[in-house]
Amino acid sequence: MLSEFDLIKHYFRRARAGHAVLGIGDDCALLAPTPGMQTAISTDMLIEGRHFFAGADPRMLGHKCLAVNLSDLAAMGARPVGFTLALSLPGADPDWLEAFSAGMFALADLHDCELVGGDTTRGPLVVCITVFGEIAPGHALRRDAARAGHDIWISGTLGDARLALAGYWKEIALQPEALALAAPRMHLPTPRVALGRALAVLPTAHAALDISDGLIGDLAHILDASKVGATLDVDALPVGPALARQPLALRRRFTLAGGDDYELCFTAPAGERAAVLAAAGSAGTPVTRVGTIDAQPGLRLVDAAGQALAMDVRGWDHFGGE
Amino acid sequence: MLSEFDLIKHYFRRARAGHAVLGIGDDCALLAPTPGMQTAISTDMLIEGRHFFAGADPRMLGHKCLAVNLSDLAAMGARPVGFTLALSLPGADPDWLEAFSAGMFALADLHDCELVGGDTTRGPLVVCITVFGEIAPGHALRRDAARAGHDIWISGTLGDARLALAGYWKEIALQPEALALAAPRMHLPTPRVALGRALAVLPTAHAALDISDGLIGDLAHILDASKVGATLDVDALPVGPALARQPLALRRRFTLAGGDDYELCFTAPAGERAAVLAAAGSAGTPVTRVGTIDAQPGLRLVDAAGQALAMDVRGWDHFGGE
Repeated sequence: MLSEFDLIKHYFRRARAGHAVLGIGDDCALLAPTPGMQTAISTDMLIEGRHFFAGADPRMLGHKCLAVNLSDLAAMGARPVGFTLALSLPGADPDWLEAFSAGMFALADLHDCELVGGDTTRGPLVVCITVFGEIAPGHALRRDAARAGHDIWISGTLGDARLALAGYWKEIALQPEALALAAPRMHLPTPRVALGRALAVLPTAHAALDISDGLIGDLAHILDASKVGATLDVDALPVGPALARQPLALRRRFTLAGGDDYELCFTAPAGERAAVLAAAGSAGTPVTRVGTIDAQPGLRLVDAAGQALAMDVRGWDHFGGE
Repeated sequence: MLSEFDLIKHYFRRARAGHAVLGIGDDCALLAPTPGMQTAISTDMLIEGRHFFAGADPRMLGHKCLAVNLSDLAAMGARPVGFTLALSLPGADPDWLEAFSAGMFALADLHDCELVGGDTTRGPLVVCITVFGEIAPGHALRRDAARAGHDIWISGTLGDARLALAGYWKEIALQPEALALAAPRMHLPTPRVALGRALAVLPTAHAALDISDGLIGDLAHILDASKVGATLDVDALPVGPALARQPLALRRRFTLAGGDDYELCFTAPAGERAAVLAAAGSAGTPVTRVGTIDAQPGLRLVDAAGQALAMDVRGWDHFGGE
């Protein structure tokens, strides 16, 4: 059987030159921070049977585990630099490791983000990635930067990942073509790194976060941190192409409280609409204006006619939301 | 039931002011690196039933999970700065969380190392910590810095953690007093941070690592990285107080290939013995000279009389060593 060290060397140590002063193979990795920049750090743990299906395709899993971490850097406006990978595996399956590392490195290379260290052990299938980025002081997109009068924006589309999950779970009868359309949004999320960086260099402070637990639950973090409220135009929410063909009630539910979207929700002064659209254009990422930050606390949902909607939706919560 | 976010706030968010520009509660933490310093990074994942017993005391577990990470910083000679914690829990038990966080923060405070971010989810009990430190360029204690003629040194004592494990596993009949003496070395390892930092500021480059998988297996990493061999004086190895009362064969086996010691193994030029002892004295950490780095590849074990020993020992390996 392969030893732990053989595994690490073979699949995760790369000939490709990286940025690290010292990479995998010592007690620590060594990075040389760019002078004057701050370090952004985030960590996410994904567990088989909870965050992904047992037997999940390892190539897509490698992509997704890194993508959800890069999405946190995107939500701060930081440039990805490197990451560590702690991996618990039931066994040392070369095919699985080959595919998992290929999926992970393909996304890492796209963002010039280097694997600098790791830990491998036997156990349940658990993937824990910690990601590092850089951002200029004062430019981070913080949750406490939303102000009354700001527009609320969403990148890309919402709800297709949740629709795919509903199909797998058989919550709804989903046509195979619809599932095939929605599934990539669940398995292969796109971290909005370019958009986050483009927003971070705009002159005004913006609030942002990435939507992982559902828009309403995540937006509440911005409202709490910024001590403001919001009005959301529910029918303005950008709907994923698969979900767009579903009934209105389902569209509303899955865009508002779907989860696993990994789109950015951000705020910006109403006077900056052109600058926001230009930043999004430069990043190649569509953005949609979906509401307004209010001085009045709480979240108000309105329909296309501006009529108040009363809906029982809430964010996905890993402890409370089961 | 407590929500994920309540949990994090209550047990892991602290009123105490930290170093981070932005700590727990946003998509990323933000750290401002000290100008001119490099960042040292390490990650370790600990799994119930594999790295610690099911039902382990949560206060000691909180200590140990951080200690094994700080030990990696110590082995590089880095100053601890901060860490992230990803925690998977079968349930939200307030008593467990209270004790775990208390044990973790007590050690963190001792080393002025701040919890800057985290992730909490439901699942098997898994703890993944990623730790960050700082070190001046060129001063890291790297595995590839051992040179023929260097002395090999060990901090503290070896083998008591492995002896405790043998007692728990009933591999040997261990007196309750002996187990009581050995057990703290297994449950509450001491990361040798002060020693590592004192060695890192000495003028000559030294090789170092922390002994987590057993001396022989870990020393092999220094020998491989530095392309050298070594001769170890087996009977010079510093034996833990509980193991010291055991038969010679067991003493040799558990000092050479015990594991879970979290002592430093380091090399230094023979001309620097006084400087090494002064550095160890300043760190309040005993050190013992146990052998020599050779130009000839391979590891040679000798007894107190200098006679070659043939022993079948090997490092603990999480995949191959079961």
